[in-house]
Amino acid sequence: MLALMSDALLSWLAFDPVLTAVEVVATLAFALSGLVAAVRKGMDAVGVCMVAGLTAFGGGTLRDVLLDRRPFFWVEHWEWLWVLLALTAAALVFLRRRHLSPTLRAIQWPDAIGLGLFAASGAQVALSQGLPGIVCALMGMITAVFGGVLRDIVCNEIPSAFSDHQPYAVCAFAGGWVLVGAQALNAPGWLALVVAAGTATGLRAAAMVTGITLPQWGGKRP
Amino acid sequence: MLALMSDALLSWLAFDPVLTAVEVVATLAFALSGLVAAVRKGMDAVGVCMVAGLTAFGGGTLRDVLLDRRPFFWVEHWEWLWVLLALTAAALVFLRRRHLSPTLRAIQWPDAIGLGLFAASGAQVALSQGLPGIVCALMGMITAVFGGVLRDIVCNEIPSAFSDHQPYAVCAFAGGWVLVGAQALNAPGWLALVVAAGTATGLRAAAMVTGITLPQWGGKRP
Amino acid sequence: MLALMSDALLSWLAFDPVLTAVEVVATLAFALSGLVAAVRKGMDAVGVCMVAGLTAFGGGTLRDVLLDRRPFFWVEHWEWLWVLLALTAAALVFLRRRHLSPTLRAIQWPDAIGLGLFAASGAQVALSQGLPGIVCALMGMITAVFGGVLRDIVCNEIPSAFSDHQPYAVCAFAGGWVLVGAQALNAPGWLALVVAAGTATGLRAAAMVTGITLPQWGGKRP
Repeated sequence: MLALMSDALLSWLAFDPVLTAVEVVATLAFALSGLVAAVRKGMDAVGVCMVAGLTAFGGGTLRDVLLDRRPFFWVEHWEWLWVLLALTAAALVFLRRRHLSPTLRAIQWPDAIGLGLFAASGAQVALSQGLPGIVCALMGMITAVFGGVLRDIVCNEIPSAFSDHQPYAVCAFAGGWVLVGAQALNAPGWLALVVAAGTATGLRAAAMVTGITLPQWGGKRP
Repeated sequence: MLALMSDALLSWLAFDPVLTAVEVVATLAFALSGLVAAVRKGMDAVGVCMVAGLTAFGGGTLRDVLLDRRPFFWVEHWEWLWVLLALTAAALVFLRRRHLSPTLRAIQWPDAIGLGLFAASGAQVALSQGLPGIVCALMGMITAVFGGVLRDIVCNEIPSAFSDHQPYAVCAFAGGWVLVGAQALNAPGWLALVVAAGTATGLRAAAMVTGITLPQWGGKRP
Repeated sequence: MLALMSDALLSWLAFDPVLTAVEVVATLAFALSGLVAAVRKGMDAVGVCMVAGLTAFGGGTLRDVLLDRRPFFWVEHWEWLWVLLALTAAALVFLRRRHLSPTLRAIQWPDAIGLGLFAASGAQVALSQGLPGIVCALMGMITAVFGGVLRDIVCNEIPSAFSDHQPYAVCAFAGGWVLVGAQALNAPGWLALVVAAGTATGLRAAAMVTGITLPQWGGKRP
């Protein structure tokens, strides 16, 4: 029943014009981070398009494979695949090498918003399957972070989420826990989602502003 | 009904001796490209065998995981696993370092045939699940190309399909679209498969003969 | 019926205190090998924790995705996720750079035990689905070895299981075949598991003691 209500809520939220706009911006930020990484590696148009798509949809797809859910987001909303093709074509025409760094800087903020949104919605999906709290928080983190992890693996790099010593995945993990906690306190679904996404995005924003880093090991810094 | 007929057709095609021979040659070409890549990286017999298998069956397995289909090709036709072991053993005995480059050149043409076959059959499988056209074309491309992508990831390289600026994945994508279009025009199933596979293989062959390259980015060439 | 009995047996074995202790030590050995690899790559606390978890649970999770089984081990026994967090926190406090090599040496033996356990149980799971012998042996090998393969891919290395010329995956594969053979001979389930795990662990131990290597190729050694 709770799961049904959550699904209904998610469907409703999906039609909310403000939330839809936020989601579009966040997804485009994820896709752009993949696009820039692929261009930097000297990939061709096909590779750039694939890496952009993998970054934008890889996290949610991995979550759905793990939770055995179908259809995937990009199968249900296949219009997004055309958006990706158009994005790649536009980048082919307009993107110059000197634009890459400014693009990455510009998408930091929408990327932080996407981190929160995807962490909250990913944890919500796991929670609606009745999974334990830590698994839900982990699924939120996987949804938000593993698109970037797959991007870095395909680009033949150690995933930056695992090695750049900036709080990123840990913010998503915290947001997932907030969602679990809010639902345990019987908060309304929309409130739980907003507070959880806000927590993850807020923590990430605070980390970006303060430049705080994760604890160091004896090991060398990257 | 259409799906049932397609399945029946695929079953029938699977017993056609000419098509079976073509499939065997194409699958061996994929396996050999993995084998050569692994030998070049100095892998041991186990690694060579695993990478050959991953290249030959990885694309179709990934498609089936995404489409939630079981059993996999190599579970249903497990004789192929013995073929892989025999292939690795034969390579261990007969393959010399000076054979590697001629092997890669020799398998270019059966590889192009495999690209067409797997793109058409992969798109057909997605179409029989009633998925949208662009998703079917993408699944055809994943079937044909992601074996090689996984090969390159395991070999710690940027996937050549994404970065060598030669038309490869895009030929498979085009073949997938031809299959979608032919079925939309109510072409008989066998004709759709033949035309789609022929389109992908033909485009790839044309690209190999003409040496045409994908559009460049401002970025450095690999 | 056989499958049901095996499941019952596995459930019973899971409560056997000796076997549980062996499993815990083996799983911790796998997690520690991931932890050390991640620390060596200069990863941060998040990356170290993720790679440790991927190494410990990646092989079994991949097997379950391929066999379409749910819930995963770490979803059903989510307490292990807390163990991983605690392990990472303890390593953050106590692990020094000079401890890394001794740690790897110390876990060689529990790692060999884990190789045998996971190969036998992985093959058993596939056998209980009625899959062919070679597929069962392969699933045992994937369960035992692919955690380490995923670890090396995320660490941006060629998987050591494919390239270090030491018998490792091949021991797991042999153990899987022993389980298949024992069940074909109608051996009791517990005996099949013990003999299969013992074979894989014994072969691995013999390889470590004798320093025997896999056949060389013409190619360069790593």
